[in-house]
Amino acid sequence: MTHDTAFLDGILPDDAVARSTASLDAHATDWGTESEDGVAPDVVVYPETTDAVSAVLSAADERGVPVTPYAAGTSLEGNPVPVEGGISMDLTRMDEVLAVRPGDFQVDVQPGVLGSVVDEAVGEYGLFFPPLPSSGDISTIGGMIANDASGMGTVKYGEVADWVLELEAVLADGSVVSPGSRAIKSSSGYNLKDLLVGSEGTLAVITRATLKLAGRPQQVRAGRALFPTLDDAVGAVTDAVQSGVDVAKIELLDRDSARMANAYSGTDLPDRPTVFVEFHADHGVAEEVEFCTTVFADHDAERFAVVDGDEMDDLWAAREELAVAIEAWDPDLRPLHPGDVTVPIGDLGAVVRRAKELAAERDQVVPCFGHAGDGNLHYTVLVDPDDDEAVARAEETYADIVALALERGGTATGEHGIGLGKREYLVAEHGEAGVAAMRSLKTALDPNDTLNPEKIFPGENADRPQ
Amino acid sequence: MTHDTAFLDGILPDDAVARSTASLDAHATDWGTESEDGVAPDVVVYPETTDAVSAVLSAADERGVPVTPYAAGTSLEGNPVPVEGGISMDLTRMDEVLAVRPGDFQVDVQPGVLGSVVDEAVGEYGLFFPPLPSSGDISTIGGMIANDASGMGTVKYGEVADWVLELEAVLADGSVVSPGSRAIKSSSGYNLKDLLVGSEGTLAVITRATLKLAGRPQQVRAGRALFPTLDDAVGAVTDAVQSGVDVAKIELLDRDSARMANAYSGTDLPDRPTVFVEFHADHGVAEEVEFCTTVFADHDAERFAVVDGDEMDDLWAAREELAVAIEAWDPDLRPLHPGDVTVPIGDLGAVVRRAKELAAERDQVVPCFGHAGDGNLHYTVLVDPDDDEAVARAEETYADIVALALERGGTATGEHGIGLGKREYLVAEHGEAGVAAMRSLKTALDPNDTLNPEKIFPGENADRPQ
Repeated sequence: MTHDTAFLDGILPDDAVARSTASLDAHATDWGTESEDGVAPDVVVYPETTDAVSAVLSAADERGVPVTPYAAGTSLEGNPVPVEGGISMDLTRMDEVLAVRPGDFQVDVQPGVLGSVVDEAVGEYGLFFPPLPSSGDISTIGGMIANDASGMGTVKYGEVADWVLELEAVLADGSVVSPGSRAIKSSSGYNLKDLLVGSEGTLAVITRATLKLAGRPQQVRAGRALFPTLDDAVGAVTDAVQSGVDVAKIELLDRDSARMANAYSGTDLPDRPTVFVEFHADHGVAEEVEFCTTVFADHDAERFAVVDGDEMDDLWAAREELAVAIEAWDPDLRPLHPGDVTVPIGDLGAVVRRAKELAAERDQVVPCFGHAGDGNLHYTVLVDPDDDEAVARAEETYADIVALALERGGTATGEHGIGLGKREYLVAEHGEAGVAAMRSLKTALDPNDTLNPEKIFPGENADRPQ
Repeated sequence: MTHDTAFLDGILPDDAVARSTASLDAHATDWGTESEDGVAPDVVVYPETTDAVSAVLSAADERGVPVTPYAAGTSLEGNPVPVEGGISMDLTRMDEVLAVRPGDFQVDVQPGVLGSVVDEAVGEYGLFFPPLPSSGDISTIGGMIANDASGMGTVKYGEVADWVLELEAVLADGSVVSPGSRAIKSSSGYNLKDLLVGSEGTLAVITRATLKLAGRPQQVRAGRALFPTLDDAVGAVTDAVQSGVDVAKIELLDRDSARMANAYSGTDLPDRPTVFVEFHADHGVAEEVEFCTTVFADHDAERFAVVDGDEMDDLWAAREELAVAIEAWDPDLRPLHPGDVTVPIGDLGAVVRRAKELAAERDQVVPCFGHAGDGNLHYTVLVDPDDDEAVARAEETYADIVALALERGGTATGEHGIGLGKREYLVAEHGEAGVAAMRSLKTALDPNDTLNPEKIFPGENADRPQ
């Protein structure tokens, strides 16, 4: 579908409108869809101000031209793919840290700033942004808010939504709202802020955010333990969380993931289920490490090494390079739909075990890892993309694991949103009435379906003006 | 306005429908409006199941009969007053703790259960519900969720919204939704859960909630310090929070509040600005107390007493009885609109100082206190209710303090909702576009304006069917 976007030239300066093939192609996919052709927009715009965002939106909304926000493109579910063409709105020129208020533990940022840049800017005041995802040095705050991202620190600190105090956002008709406040709590009116967080650019374009920060812990320790079996490793994680060990990160790698990480990084560690852990405290970190050691020992932990300072980087490297290690494992195999499910912590063991059983039954390679302390499981099926039958069987395993997470009261996506990839699970998770309520919210805030159409909701939107 | 509610007799058993004057009058006001006549509903219903809630709502919605949810009636802003008559839906018979899952740190409850009952039920597993407000032994979980309440523990643990994982709720048309999940994080679809939290019964009736819990801290200490001046006391609170002292509660009483508390409880403490503090830790509580002592000493703290065990109850009594003490202070004076504003912590000093200046300039008694670590300020103007001029001047002071909080980037209500009492500040806080967006959400989920009409939004709702 091609849209007439000539009207943009009257709204934006020349250097803020791009129609080159390279620009269009660069906005046709995200990480999760980059092996596909994607859908190129008709035009890419690079607004630098809230007024510019508003002007583009109100003009596009009047003309029935879709607008899909785009930032770093590091999402996994096709969230910013402009499937109906139109305008890709690239927010990466709005990349400033506007103000740090250390006494209030707050920072104001533009949406296109990288997470690591924010973390560095507030670091000089002894502060940090705790829910930063692992991709924080290449992904933007706007994208994290749009997908309600989270990361390794979520087990202690919560998800991105928990750290957003106030937003400035532009609705489809160009009107500008500022939901939330700078107070750390509010019960004033409807919580429009948390409705926009995680709405994947389908309800508004975020143009500014006030984030809450935390003081950097004075004591940090990192640890890594190997376990004889997956059951031991999952048992150790579950037991640590349930016993109240104060972990700031607790990550699980199954044997397949460990094998790929070890191969990629060239360590001499045996390929065993592995748990990485990090402790943050202002005092008493030694007691916490000791507590964790006792819990891990009950599950036959081996080689539990705890380090601090620069040694922590080396220890964490294997975990942090894992996504790349899985990609690199076998040049003939591609990871199908890397993403996550999340379940109550008490159900994590059952879900991981079943995932591995399915892999064994179907003779598939399914590396499992994730922010296990949250009940979060990342998994992917490695598959030959040219073997249609193998791809179909891989899709089945993928879907079975999502279904299992939902059965256990969990969610189809803990941290990557629905995008295109998980639309088919929305009704299973939220029910017909829940999805109908969500659709009515979309219609209320974006009646012409201008913003990021066809995302989140299954099927075509019959109301879309042609 | 009287509505025909005879249709209820075909839906509910006899003992679930009350039309006695006593029943109607008991649902005509809440705490914040009990000195007023209130507005009696035409009927009170006492549903015991989700199906009954759904049946009443769908029948009322078809007939244009308003339905206003009611629980303990401990709200302050007239939130459950049925101003258009119709049905008061009393949820207090749905008061069960349905299931505790200690391994997941979760409890499922019905909306009419008292906060203290939940806390006790999970206590036997070593768990607690951290955001419980001070009124937790007389207020219900449903009411806390509806108003997004918070309390003394919010400075460490967050507000009620932060501890709600999943809801079951009935929309105006009778359809049942279950937003959220039992996983501790999700980015699946729109965050309908947090839209319902704090919506004051205007979007849905909550019929079940899954709450997140925390492990009870192994070390608890309580402290109380007096300060020579209000500036010293506010400085001590602000400095403690900004320095990162790990306080679980930190409460401020100005000299007026302290005087009233001392008079009521008959202590021999001097009437000085007072700070109460509580520490929760699993280890290292002594270091935290010492850190706090140092910070307080910098602000000339006097008589800083720290106790544990049963002595903590005695120490906290003066703070916990404060609302009653203010009521009892002078039989000729009534507290006008007890409620709160909340600002960024760095602005708390300026707001408290200005409140006291206004009181001095206008010769009014304005006790100020609150969960100061959150930037929260409770205040009220004591006034002779029969002196119209004095009441008008008191209203002015009240409004000036709200305006000041908004100027400082704060909120008109940190924890009591908008209800009837704060509707006039909604536009000032959220802007015309923000309020228009909120209205569109109301229309989307409750097109006939059946649920708790006339609340939150200023002015008449022109769309109400007559």
